Amino acid sequence: MQYVPAGQNQYATNTKEYSIIKMKRTELSELGEFGLIDRIKETVLLRNTNTIRGIGDDAAVMEYGETCVLVSTDLLVEGIHFDLSYVPLRHLGYKAVVVNLSDIAAMNAIPQHITVSVALSNRFSVEAVTELYEGISLACEHYGIDLVGGDTTTSPAGLTISITAMGTAARADIAYRNTARPGDVICVTGDLGAAYLGLQVLEREKQEFLANPDMEPKLDDKEYLVGRQLKPEARTDIIYDFRDLGIVPSSMIDISDGLASDLLHLCKASGTGAAIYEAELPADDATLLTATEFNMSPTTCIMNGGEDYELLFTVSQQQYEKLRNHRDIKAIGVMRDAGEGVLLMSSAGNPYVVQAQGWNHFGDNKL
Amino acid sequence: MQYVPAGQNQYATNTKEYSIIKMKRTELSELGEFGLIDRIKETVLLRNTNTIRGIGDDAAVMEYGETCVLVSTDLLVEGIHFDLSYVPLRHLGYKAVVVNLSDIAAMNAIPQHITVSVALSNRFSVEAVTELYEGISLACEHYGIDLVGGDTTTSPAGLTISITAMGTAARADIAYRNTARPGDVICVTGDLGAAYLGLQVLEREKQEFLANPDMEPKLDDKEYLVGRQLKPEARTDIIYDFRDLGIVPSSMIDISDGLASDLLHLCKASGTGAAIYEAELPADDATLLTATEFNMSPTTCIMNGGEDYELLFTVSQQQYEKLRNHRDIKAIGVMRDAGEGVLLMSSAGNPYVVQAQGWNHFGDNKL
Repeated sequence: MQYVPAGQNQYATNTKEYSIIKMKRTELSELGEFGLIDRIKETVLLRNTNTIRGIGDDAAVMEYGETCVLVSTDLLVEGIHFDLSYVPLRHLGYKAVVVNLSDIAAMNAIPQHITVSVALSNRFSVEAVTELYEGISLACEHYGIDLVGGDTTTSPAGLTISITAMGTAARADIAYRNTARPGDVICVTGDLGAAYLGLQVLEREKQEFLANPDMEPKLDDKEYLVGRQLKPEARTDIIYDFRDLGIVPSSMIDISDGLASDLLHLCKASGTGAAIYEAELPADDATLLTATEFNMSPTTCIMNGGEDYELLFTVSQQQYEKLRNHRDIKAIGVMRDAGEGVLLMSSAGNPYVVQAQGWNHFGDNKL
Repeated sequence: MQYVPAGQNQYATNTKEYSIIKMKRTELSELGEFGLIDRIKETVLLRNTNTIRGIGDDAAVMEYGETCVLVSTDLLVEGIHFDLSYVPLRHLGYKAVVVNLSDIAAMNAIPQHITVSVALSNRFSVEAVTELYEGISLACEHYGIDLVGGDTTTSPAGLTISITAMGTAARADIAYRNTARPGDVICVTGDLGAAYLGLQVLEREKQEFLANPDMEPKLDDKEYLVGRQLKPEARTDIIYDFRDLGIVPSSMIDISDGLASDLLHLCKASGTGAAIYEAELPADDATLLTATEFNMSPTTCIMNGGEDYELLFTVSQQQYEKLRNHRDIKAIGVMRDAGEGVLLMSSAGNPYVVQAQGWNHFGDNKL
């Protein structure tokens, strides 16, 4: 790469940002949801023999002697990923850590370390930043994580948070996305759809609050949903259970984009189809009731809601026997041959093709 | 942490951003340059026995069996860290990687892996993003680095880049900031002040270009300076030289904020004073000539310029004998007892107290 003086720059025009204007212009939105990532992937060459897995899973995997280190990173931007009008900064700090720990858990690994970088506009006071870091500290305490580094900087506008999480696992314990086999049982932890409905509740409250600031919030029966949205947890507890039970999932992913989207990721990566059963999908009563209140299909909320941070995984039928009585794991279907497609079998017995309705514009995409 | 509904939020006011307004307000600028970092440090507790070093050095250190993994991260924000009116995106991508690799090198470690996250507004086309990643790929190729993960997301405005670099070293080889001893020889690699003057040249060109877009740039004799600003290199070559010569610096830091600021970091962390000699400070002829052209003191540019990404390190006098003939390492002074202060001995023989004039407002601070 040779330095090209600005005035001789091939992109030079007479506009202020001349370095980026006068090139052929393809909108990012034209590239589709994962097009940009595919393009980035194409340019990537792995050179180090200790790189076990690069781009394309919940976390990268590097091997150092007997230990594999897993690394995952997220960039959260105000106005895109969070709205400070209803997200307290303490919760934001907590959640920002959790979503990264969830990615490490999704590899069947135990998170240990994080770095946290923040860019802050002068709108933010020291007290506000302290709130944010209190939430971060609380998550570190809850999950036994060390905050080992980061960066702080000013920003022209708004708040940006970048967190990188690192964890460890023995190489044989790591669960990837691309190793499910037809016949494996498809399981999920916890319940689904609540975080999405919590967001709908918060959005509704915000609108009503803006219309009438003296209004008392009506959240009595929504505490569970709102809590799932504002303060999700990473299922590291399940990883310890797997260790205790001697289970290594044949594939795993965390449910951040929604069950439909994340199941499709597993199937695409593994080259399988799948059948899941509407009647088996786990949801809290509050989810079912509130979906109806919002005139939404509960199944749509469960399938496409996103931000549940539960684990979606597959195990062999034999391994599943060890999990059959687990209080918080539910079998929802079975992996099939790719040719059979990815189907949701409705409670009435009809098959529907599963489609990702999560974030299908250029939005937030993990490499 | 309990979820607090927005309307009952202690910060609730009738403004849109009610969650962050109605708290006691201390401006970030009041806290001073490193006040925020000190405050964050106070909240941090290290829980994992494999955390060898957390916040406070160029990189964090974690131990996995025989290997230590070093991690450093940077957040680069458009309008704060870079100006796309004269920084081509390919150079920006390259430099963004290099500054992180430099932090790993500053620990006497070899970088191996990076993650790259970008937030992009719709001002950026696919071609622009491709340019950025070409620069990133070029840096990966040059330094033998694997890009193993990241995140892509939209941004309401501008470009933000977050890079995390990881490297390895044996525990005994790691060079920290806080282990210099009085009597140690203070050395720097390469030459200093050029990147800062390169920035001045680019700023001048930008103003002239804005005034007269048809103007031809006058950069013939400034190529070295501008190249140092736009395309710095990380001194991993020196780390390999240290290995070959059997040298472990007694302390080390990379010069990102300027020699003065970074020498003060070493002295403060190590509890030492220092004397450096103006006559020994390494600078390119172009730096000396251009400083004069801009009516600046060359020594000020060398001491406070910043962004050189050279290494500042100390070695014992015996170890220094092995470096005496190194083509690209220069002894500039000696560590002293703390009581003797940190002094610059002028060419005329007068002592001046070294003061950090780098970024003394709330700006860009590494944890």
